[in-house]
Parts: sequence; structure tokens; C-alpha cells
Amino acid sequence: MSRAPEPSEVLLLGPGPSPVPPEVTRALAAPLLGHLDPEFIALMDRVKRQLRDVFGTRAEFTLPISGTGSAGMEASLTNLLEPGDRAVIGVHGVFGARMVDCARRLGAEVAVVEAPFGEALDSDAVRRAALAGPTRLVAFVHAETSTGVLQPTDGIVAAARDAGALVLADCVTSLGGVPVDVDAAGFDAAFSGTQKCLSVPPGLAPLTFGPRAMERVAARRAPPPSWYLDVAMLAGYWREGVQRAYHHTAPVAMVYALARGLDLVLDEGLAARWERHRQAAALLYAGLDELGLRCVVAPALRLPQLTTVAVPDGVDAEVVRRRLRDEHRIEIGGGLGAMKGRVWRIGLMGHGARPDVVRRLLAALRDVLAA
Amino acid sequence: MSRAPEPSEVLLLGPGPSPVPPEVTRALAAPLLGHLDPEFIALMDRVKRQLRDVFGTRAEFTLPISGTGSAGMEASLTNLLEPGDRAVIGVHGVFGARMVDCARRLGAEVAVVEAPFGEALDSDAVRRAALAGPTRLVAFVHAETSTGVLQPTDGIVAAARDAGALVLADCVTSLGGVPVDVDAAGFDAAFSGTQKCLSVPPGLAPLTFGPRAMERVAARRAPPPSWYLDVAMLAGYWREGVQRAYHHTAPVAMVYALARGLDLVLDEGLAARWERHRQAAALLYAGLDELGLRCVVAPALRLPQLTTVAVPDGVDAEVVRRRLRDEHRIEIGGGLGAMKGRVWRIGLMGHGARPDVVRRLLAALRDVLAA
Repeated sequence: MSRAPEPSEVLLLGPGPSPVPPEVTRALAAPLLGHLDPEFIALMDRVKRQLRDVFGTRAEFTLPISGTGSAGMEASLTNLLEPGDRAVIGVHGVFGARMVDCARRLGAEVAVVEAPFGEALDSDAVRRAALAGPTRLVAFVHAETSTGVLQPTDGIVAAARDAGALVLADCVTSLGGVPVDVDAAGFDAAFSGTQKCLSVPPGLAPLTFGPRAMERVAARRAPPPSWYLDVAMLAGYWREGVQRAYHHTAPVAMVYALARGLDLVLDEGLAARWERHRQAAALLYAGLDELGLRCVVAPALRLPQLTTVAVPDGVDAEVVRRRLRDEHRIEIGGGLGAMKGRVWRIGLMGHGARPDVVRRLLAALRDVLAA
Repeated sequence: MSRAPEPSEVLLLGPGPSPVPPEVTRALAAPLLGHLDPEFIALMDRVKRQLRDVFGTRAEFTLPISGTGSAGMEASLTNLLEPGDRAVIGVHGVFGARMVDCARRLGAEVAVVEAPFGEALDSDAVRRAALAGPTRLVAFVHAETSTGVLQPTDGIVAAARDAGALVLADCVTSLGGVPVDVDAAGFDAAFSGTQKCLSVPPGLAPLTFGPRAMERVAARRAPPPSWYLDVAMLAGYWREGVQRAYHHTAPVAMVYALARGLDLVLDEGLAARWERHRQAAALLYAGLDELGLRCVVAPALRLPQLTTVAVPDGVDAEVVRRRLRDEHRIEIGGGLGAMKGRVWRIGLMGHGARPDVVRRLLAALRDVLAA
């Protein structure tokens, strides 16, 4: 009998997936229910309520898309944009560029507002772009996983409002690690992934559409080109308290895992969780400083859950990563796009944002860099 | 601490998801690797090889899409069709109708060939439709989960060839339960789901694109409207033996489960697995006959893994289903679309296609129908 080998235990301190708590792993392996079973439907309702609490929204349409974080991006854009719509998209990393690609495929006219990788978008530049034409949507990445920058949002949201545009925030890496607060921040739509600060395996994309976004969906001239990610149909499948309209088959085991992961997030409390991420990052910064390593992002813009570290001159970034993986069973990330080979990306996300984890990483880094 | 309740153990004999073998459940809970970890990449390569064996194809582009079966449908159509393309789509159940909706959203001109629910498509009608105009694609459902019909394929494939069209087969429910043999059958593209006869939880959609389908992808005037399901990008991410191009984050735990599920399928052997499904169905037919219940589909067209049973006059279909679920912990399916309330759908799929399972179901049905 030929069998796939058992995976090694690796401490996941890259840009995601993040370490999964044992309780979430056990939930994955719970008895499988049918996707229309009354118990599973009750669990879907529970997950929707939990996601509203975690996103900080009262929006009825708040649910996990049956795909990874990128499916959340695509669901947002394919439902909010129609051919010929003008969209302003901020690009200060790989994930902003990805939204531009996605929006252009949908026939949108995209105005790109750029900032150098490692910096934040300038809200005045966003304002100028949004007012330069009738703008349907302003989209940006709240936590750029490719650079480790936390984007300030107030100026962007105000600019979008003044232009009469909807606001879409990529919260893949921010949700659960730093404040998101969708309603208070004024995001009309936001998406995330399960495998970052929620510490659930990859496979689902939490998505929320507020009232203005749902109005846009209702006012479309034609349904979106995606049947699988059609928000109007998904709303029927995930509708609470009434007969569900069958759409697709939800990934039942992954929904179990998400429900348990959200239990843990809400038991801990969002404020306590954000503070835990902040403290783990502070410990990391101090340790990196002792090792003579430099963080790329200015302190005020740093994401606690994702730290971009400059690779010192004369050090081979990939050799260090490989030795951490093989000798210490620790994964950290390499640079993406313009930062390839020049940085490491260290994720302290969700279950990984703990002092013992930081100490283990620092000891391993010291060992690898010494020899 | 608030916790989502533990799911009940329910024997899954509906139209999917199907029962999951304990080994597959354990694989779900294996230590999570990063999605670019060398061990995980080796597992991706293994899964591709396994899927080729199960689909009966040598096509390089054979991999699991990161979504449920419907995402496999959408990936097929969004990559093979461009606006203005003519597609002939067979509709003899709900899942054919779904392909029509999906193709029209993509701007295709769709010619529908219909057959009554419970019957098969007429290949002469497909031929006439395919020759009535320049046709890009002929698509049909190989195993209609909504009716329990196994569609004969030779006539449809020949018609498509004569029209110079590509052939797309929805093999969601057929794969692993009846012969599929993509290359021998002449399918240019086929998709499936993990939660039917492969007996893996829902969440992935095996997809294969043969040489002609890949030529079509390369010859497109514009990339597909879907970024998430773009076959050219997915080919880069799942490419073997060379540096992967990062696309999305694969659902790692689900890929573990699929790898183990495919281990079990290939260990058993496809021919033995098909025969097991056939024998389980024969036992079911005999038992239904004893209970005075009638199968809707003619014997020659019946899918062994999905049996549509007529609800007798005077019996409330939903009451029977609810009692099976609550008193016997067995799920069977109700009717979909035109068959709602008029049939039950009994799935004996993958791990569920066993004589002890059939006997347990028949005893429960006898009990519920008696009182």
C-alpha cells in the first residue's frame, strides 16, 4: 500500500498559514454532517454571527466564501464592479497589484495609486484619483502581507466618500491581529482569509458586504461573470432562519474549523488578542535589534503580525530560510515581488503570537546567522 | 467559554457529502505545513499524479481547484469560453442548467439541448445543435446528481468532434464510482468534487484540461474574468519539478485529505471500486423492490452511486427524511428542481457503498415507512 508521507511538524512563522491551535485541528476531524443538515445550518448561522463580531460589523451579508483569501478578493470585485466602472486601487505591495489585475479582467477602468513597497499609500493621492472621474470603488490593502505595512484608513475612506465611491478593504492579514472595525472605519466591503491571524487552516475567505455594497449588487445591470462567487446567490444559501436556497456544497470540515477558531478568538477577546500581537512584535523587534537586524518598515506603519526584515549584506536569504526549516523546523517567508531576496518576512499570527514562540525563533536565527 | 456544539454522527447516504474513511479524517488533522514548503510541494506533485490515474488521463494540467465542485465547473467554463463563443450544453437535470447559467454570464451564446429529468440526452439532438453553428464547446453532465442518470458519452463526443468543438464533462458524481477514463472517452476537460465517490470532505474540485483545452487557453483573446480560477496561472503554481509561481494559498489540510483519499482509491483499484458500487446498488435495488419502492431511472441508465426513488402516493417525502435523520441518524437527499417533493435521492458513494450500509438503510426505511 502506497501512502503519502506524514507531514513534518514545522513552526509556521511565515506570512501564513499560521500555527493552528489543537482545538481547531480536532474540530477539522469532527464527524462530517451533510451541508444541508439542520445542525450544520445552525453552525452556519453561528459562524455568521461570530464573523460579524470579529469584523466589527452589523452587516447581514457576512460569511465565509468557499475558497482561500484570494477568492474573497475576487468575490468582492466581481460583485461590486461592472464593465466600464472606474475603480481606484492602491498598490503598495503585491496584493494591491493583484486587485488591479482582477479588476481589469472584469472590464473595469482602473486608476492605480502607487506607493513604494514598504511605505503606506498617500490619502491625498487617493483623493485626487478618486475625484478625477466618476468612481465606483476605492480599494486598498489594509495589511500588506508582502511588505508588513499597516495602511492608515481614515483619509482613504473620506476620499472615497467625497467621490461617492464604495470602499473595499483587503483585511486578509489584518483581521484578528490589529483593529479592523468595518462599520466604524466606514468600509463598505472587506474580505479576509482564515490562515492568518484567525489561525485556522487555509480554505475559507471571510467576506462582509455592508448596505451600500448590497445596494450596488442589487442595482447591477447584469449578474457577475462568476456563478460560484455570486453574492446574491450566496446570500440565499447562507440566509438565516428560513429555508436555504441550495447553491454549492459548503466545505463542511473547514467550516467546523473556522467555527472553533472564532470561538477561540472571541473567548480571548479582540482587544486582548490585538495586545498579544503587539507584545509579541515588541519582543521580536528587541531581539532582532540585538542580532543587528533591521526592520524595513517605519515603526508607526509596522504590522505587529508581519515583520519585514532586511537581509544583511553578504547573507544569502534563501540559505538562512532553508537552514531554519531543516535544522530548526521553523518556516519564515522570503520576499515577494520587488522585495525578493532582499527581505525575510516573519509572521507572528494568531496562535503564533506568543513570547515562547518569539524566543524559539530568535534563538534559531542567532544560531543560523552565527555559522 | 462559548463553544460550537460537537456535530452528531450521521450516516451520509444523500447526494454528497459521502462518509469519510477514518484514515482520511486523520489526514485532515495532520500537522499543517506552509503551502510552499518542499514537503507540501512534493505532496502536490503526488496528488497530481494520483488524479491523473483516477481521471484516466495523461494530461499535465490535472489538479484540485481550491473550491468545491461548482468551482471546478466555473474554472472549466471561464477558461474555455470567451464572449460570443457558441456553446452547446445538455440539460437533463439541475447541474446542466447550472452550466447554462454560468456560460451565459461569461457572454457565451448557449444552445440548450434538453432531455426530461430522469432520462439521458439524445446524442442526435446534441449533434444537430453542435452543427447548427460554429461551436466552441459541448458540455454535459456525466452523472446527474439531481436525477441519478448516467449519461452515455460516445455519441456526444463524436458529435462534438465532427463540429470541431471541445468536450467538457461534469464528472462530479461519476469520478471514482463508475468508469470515467477521460482520455479514452475523448473528454477535453472534466471536473469533479471530492465529496462524492472519492469520499473526501467537500472543499476541492479535481480538474483536468487536455491538450486541446490548453491550446484554447493559450489562444484566448483576453485572460478569463476570473483571477482565482485562471488556468494559466494555476498551471504555474502547480507546475512540477521547477520553481512554483505563487498564486493563491492552497487549502493545505484539504489537500492532505485528498491525497489520503486518493491513496485509498488507488489501493483498492478503480475496477474493484466500480464493482463495489455496482454490487451495493444491486443490493439496494433488491431491497427497495421488497419495500414496494420504485426507482425512477431506467435500469440501463442508473447511476449505482445515486438512486432516485419515487415517493409513494400519500407519503410525505420530508417527514420520512426527517425521521431517518432524527431516529436513525441517516441522511438521504430530497428532490431538486422539478423533482422536489417527488423523489428521494439515495447516495451509496465511496466509503458508503458497502453491503452493511445498505442493510442499515433498508432496515431504517422499513421502520419509518411502516409507521
